[in-house]
Amino acid sequence: MSALLESYAAGRWFRDAGDGEPLLDAATGEEVARFSRRGPDVAAMVRHGREVGGPALRALTFHERAALLKALAKHLMAGKEELYALSVRTGATARDTAVDVDGGIGTLFSYASKGVRELPNHTVVLDGGVERLGKGGTFVGQHLYASRPGVAVQINAFNFPVWGMLEKLAPAFLAGLPSIVKPAGQTAYLTELAVRQIVESQILPEGALQLLAAGPDGLLDALTVQDSVAFTGSARTAGILRRHPNVLDGSVALGVEADSLNCSILGPDVRPDDPEFELFVKGVVTEMTVKAGQKCTAIRRVIVPEAMADQVTEALAARLAKVTIGDPRNPDVRMGALASLDQRDEVRKAVEALRAGAAVVVGDPAGAGPVMGDAERGAFMTPLVLRARPGTAEPHDVEAFGPVSTVLTYGGLEEAVALAARGKGSLAASVATGDPDVARTVVLGLAPWHGRVLVLDRDDAKESTGHGSPLPVLVHGGPGRAGGGEELGGIRGVLHHMQRTAVQASPDKLTAVTGQWTAGAARTESGVHPFRKSLADLRIGDTIASAPRTVTLEDIGHFAEFTGDTFYAHTDPEAAARNPLFGGIVAHGYLVVSLAAGLFVDPAPGPVLANFGVDALRFLTPVKAGDTIEVALTVKQITPRAGADYGEVRWDAVVSNQDGRPVATYDVLTLVAKTWPAPSATED
Amino acid sequence: MSALLESYAAGRWFRDAGDGEPLLDAATGEEVARFSRRGPDVAAMVRHGREVGGPALRALTFHERAALLKALAKHLMAGKEELYALSVRTGATARDTAVDVDGGIGTLFSYASKGVRELPNHTVVLDGGVERLGKGGTFVGQHLYASRPGVAVQINAFNFPVWGMLEKLAPAFLAGLPSIVKPAGQTAYLTELAVRQIVESQILPEGALQLLAAGPDGLLDALTVQDSVAFTGSARTAGILRRHPNVLDGSVALGVEADSLNCSILGPDVRPDDPEFELFVKGVVTEMTVKAGQKCTAIRRVIVPEAMADQVTEALAARLAKVTIGDPRNPDVRMGALASLDQRDEVRKAVEALRAGAAVVVGDPAGAGPVMGDAERGAFMTPLVLRARPGTAEPHDVEAFGPVSTVLTYGGLEEAVALAARGKGSLAASVATGDPDVARTVVLGLAPWHGRVLVLDRDDAKESTGHGSPLPVLVHGGPGRAGGGEELGGIRGVLHHMQRTAVQASPDKLTAVTGQWTAGAARTESGVHPFRKSLADLRIGDTIASAPRTVTLEDIGHFAEFTGDTFYAHTDPEAAARNPLFGGIVAHGYLVVSLAAGLFVDPAPGPVLANFGVDALRFLTPVKAGDTIEVALTVKQITPRAGADYGEVRWDAVVSNQDGRPVATYDVLTLVAKTWPAPSATED
Repeated sequence: MSALLESYAAGRWFRDAGDGEPLLDAATGEEVARFSRRGPDVAAMVRHGREVGGPALRALTFHERAALLKALAKHLMAGKEELYALSVRTGATARDTAVDVDGGIGTLFSYASKGVRELPNHTVVLDGGVERLGKGGTFVGQHLYASRPGVAVQINAFNFPVWGMLEKLAPAFLAGLPSIVKPAGQTAYLTELAVRQIVESQILPEGALQLLAAGPDGLLDALTVQDSVAFTGSARTAGILRRHPNVLDGSVALGVEADSLNCSILGPDVRPDDPEFELFVKGVVTEMTVKAGQKCTAIRRVIVPEAMADQVTEALAARLAKVTIGDPRNPDVRMGALASLDQRDEVRKAVEALRAGAAVVVGDPAGAGPVMGDAERGAFMTPLVLRARPGTAEPHDVEAFGPVSTVLTYGGLEEAVALAARGKGSLAASVATGDPDVARTVVLGLAPWHGRVLVLDRDDAKESTGHGSPLPVLVHGGPGRAGGGEELGGIRGVLHHMQRTAVQASPDKLTAVTGQWTAGAARTESGVHPFRKSLADLRIGDTIASAPRTVTLEDIGHFAEFTGDTFYAHTDPEAAARNPLFGGIVAHGYLVVSLAAGLFVDPAPGPVLANFGVDALRFLTPVKAGDTIEVALTVKQITPRAGADYGEVRWDAVVSNQDGRPVATYDVLTLVAKTWPAPSATED
Repeated sequence: MSALLESYAAGRWFRDAGDGEPLLDAATGEEVARFSRRGPDVAAMVRHGREVGGPALRALTFHERAALLKALAKHLMAGKEELYALSVRTGATARDTAVDVDGGIGTLFSYASKGVRELPNHTVVLDGGVERLGKGGTFVGQHLYASRPGVAVQINAFNFPVWGMLEKLAPAFLAGLPSIVKPAGQTAYLTELAVRQIVESQILPEGALQLLAAGPDGLLDALTVQDSVAFTGSARTAGILRRHPNVLDGSVALGVEADSLNCSILGPDVRPDDPEFELFVKGVVTEMTVKAGQKCTAIRRVIVPEAMADQVTEALAARLAKVTIGDPRNPDVRMGALASLDQRDEVRKAVEALRAGAAVVVGDPAGAGPVMGDAERGAFMTPLVLRARPGTAEPHDVEAFGPVSTVLTYGGLEEAVALAARGKGSLAASVATGDPDVARTVVLGLAPWHGRVLVLDRDDAKESTGHGSPLPVLVHGGPGRAGGGEELGGIRGVLHHMQRTAVQASPDKLTAVTGQWTAGAARTESGVHPFRKSLADLRIGDTIASAPRTVTLEDIGHFAEFTGDTFYAHTDPEAAARNPLFGGIVAHGYLVVSLAAGLFVDPAPGPVLANFGVDALRFLTPVKAGDTIEVALTVKQITPRAGADYGEVRWDAVVSNQDGRPVATYDVLTLVAKTWPAPSATED
């Protein structure tokens, strides 16, 4: 008898006393592991997450959390052969496992990178700009995202035991939420192995990840308002979760990624000898055969112009004929087994339902076909293409979660979009077209019904990741039947786990809350030029208020000549006078910011290493010859970079004229050494 | 017998054949109007919205929709006296009506303004930047928000019959969604009047607004996946809505704004003679008495330091003693009636429940007290302050929807935050403090539990809009018990009504879909400098590829001297060589962009009127003496401004060096005349 799967709960591994039920190899039917529905005390797991994991996580900044994700990704990458070896038992070929294991690790890397590049080195995220709520500027508003003091429960599907866990874990972790992962029983042994690797690495703070390799009984009962559940699976189970009292009345947030009858549309412009035709057919076959079609994003509906249906069907048949099916241990096999014989029965039942409105045109629904493996004990299945009769409902309602697609035909583009919409909301759609107008019409028509839409053409074919691949940087999820949830999408996926709150305060109090300087808040002029302060010494609000400088007509003329920017508003008094906005010669905007830099820069070598950019520069009042400008430069945000001996400083810059009116406002971005003299400079 | 309220359904006014039930004046008990639960064919209303209102709305750009909202706001402002006259019958004082009527109209103005300033003059909204999905740049991703082809059903509470409608209508309208408004029966006559004014104005496209002044029977049954419901009201009704099959299994999006036990916290730093003490007390009294406390955002829990409880109670008593109660027609009355005698019974029941754990310390729970009006038939009620015994649950669970607040005490700040959290999620909280550390601790502690948090201090007091006022530019809604929804928040409220979709495509196809030029897409060099093209002639992708210019050491030295920006990296070869990022003299970033402008500008008077800003400028590669730069400037986005003879053009600028490496990237923002020569210029 094989080993019973264990849960990692409240800091230790838990094994049920019973024998459990066997989990079988998808291709050979041999026992891989055993699974018991009885697990550890789930309420204690929730408490452990809330009381141990959450506080530890939220004590870290986003950058620190990102660094842990990166370390974890490296650790898993180093140990991935072990995962590959076990993954084969789920029926997965090496290509399938790459999607699951490398895809999951890649998601960690992506979030690690986004976390550093797009989140502050802080614990709250500001959302949008400051809203001035009164004319005097003493009362302002700012939205921010704060971490929730709860747990993120993740209920995953059987098809991606590694990716499914990591794609939910990564954004939740960055958001400061501890995860409790409940994998689907059928392939839980692979999730358990990945969690063992993670736990043994000791990279994540204790409590940040727990594994419930058991039934979910009682888990939702333990959740309250700050907790959330992210579920991937069937609409039926989603319906059960939606009916849980803690979801209905207890404010537990439930995100769902469920049934999805994704479609791919062949544009009416595409001829059989166009590259887009082959790309389309290849895309459909890929989606039918990767993971043996057991992907939430796989193409279930193949929507083609009436006149092209036969050619598409023939091309699909030709390509599918080359797909070798069998035990994934055999290197010649291109498509492995379904997850289990039960799962295959489910798919066959769905095919029978589809046949009420469609005929099988490629493949044998009885499943007979050459198999490189144990045809009796392995959950193998021949890919099937059906051709729907016009107007039938089944292809839009029945999800056969295997290597099965149905061809539907359309007359005009409007009908193609209407057919797609009959899926009632899906995760992903694609359209193969060479025509920009077709692309626009189809994408905008599909957009309200889909979480992701891919345009496939000869230009992107080489780099395209394909219809069925969720990417960490793009939203994964879909409206309507697909569940209405959103996962991934880069930082969007992190913010989903956080609470958005509008803060109203005086500029000083808002600065204290957000840790970022707010216009109108106190400025500190310490006598020391802030360019002479290292990151360790700089403080939010440190300011240099410059000396004034008068901009002369000669300055403007000289700048025009020197730079070549002889735009008439700077050079031709008569023409400039006719400009409706200026009414006379004005200084170049670039001259104003250049002179402003001359006014605020402290020239000698010091901790400020470089100006790497400018954001949101607006010219508010024209500067005319004879106007006198001055600039106030104030430390707005300080972002130390982990692993570097410098950090980023964002400065608020306001250039004003002799009347005190703002002439230009912008953010200046600099790199500033953490200490000064810098360790390397002292060696000098 | 007064008139039966009518519904505006499918383009005509509908009146039920029956007599309906009377709606009574809150202060006098006289009949104001009659209300029948039986209304028009709700399925036909939904169809009308989908088939007539939606398409008409979505044919307009965001700016065009915003212009209609502005016209509507002006129209309602001109007719508001009629609304004021009727509003008094709901029990509202003039101050209360200002919140409802002027607040509603102000929300329209705010959305009209935000729609023009923050949304494109287009029909889709781009979300975030372009994601490069392959190294070659041929496959990219972009999130966008698209309008849903459904209807927005709005079920409003009785307390704000005008604001409640307009605050939901404005963002839905901007999002391209037709609204079906179902007001609460008790005050539906005021909503009906406002809708009559709107319909008669013919400002909105037919079908964009329908009124269901009847029961909601069958309304949710008619909704499907692209429709949404925004509900404001009790948690009990919200629970019924959540259980509707079309919500549970039919993917109808339901937003809820329900019970909320909002709190206000007095900071431990505040002494009785500090301005914050009086501000705090004043805030509580205002929230208890405006709309007679019938506000979802009113302060139900007054959380104060133990040592301050008596002083706060006394101060509340003193202020409340001055609040005159009675018929709002009497100009001396400061607090009007509750909406109805039934409503008062509800509040009294809630007070009884609260008294299980709290004692009444201000006011007479039997309701006796001086009233300027018909004390028998008017729904008047004395404000009540309760003092909770430590640890009691009721103040955190029972919402008395009237002039009732309960004082609770805390030891340390952590306890104050924990008490607030016992409300299980609220709409709004406030804290009165003069201490930035207290502000930070309390705001960040409350943030996960609240949609809005206000810091009240002496600095913002004068401009503060107060604890209880939702503002159009800030999110309104709260987590947990408050319903978990979000409304308003400026453009956030618009996007809530739209579907976010990730689009993956080649740059050319993405450009076709979004109408905004994407890096990597085709550029058009037509031989005509794009600065010579008016807005009417400019096309996305029009490009000027400049001549090259070599940047000399003399240029750098001269620029340093001229601007005064003598930063060592531009002037001191030895010091510059030690800079870890440059390793030698480099050109100023401002010099690079100034020279770039000299390379791309076409100097003669033409349709380009001004450069009004620069966005997202990044210096990617240092420019050293002897390097040769050139610039490509490409039309990225064109935004005609309604009512002006010019529009905004956003240009993509890429400065590259002799190796083709990007030196600087940024967006240049210009104003460009719609036609050229401009009408005004030809007169010249």
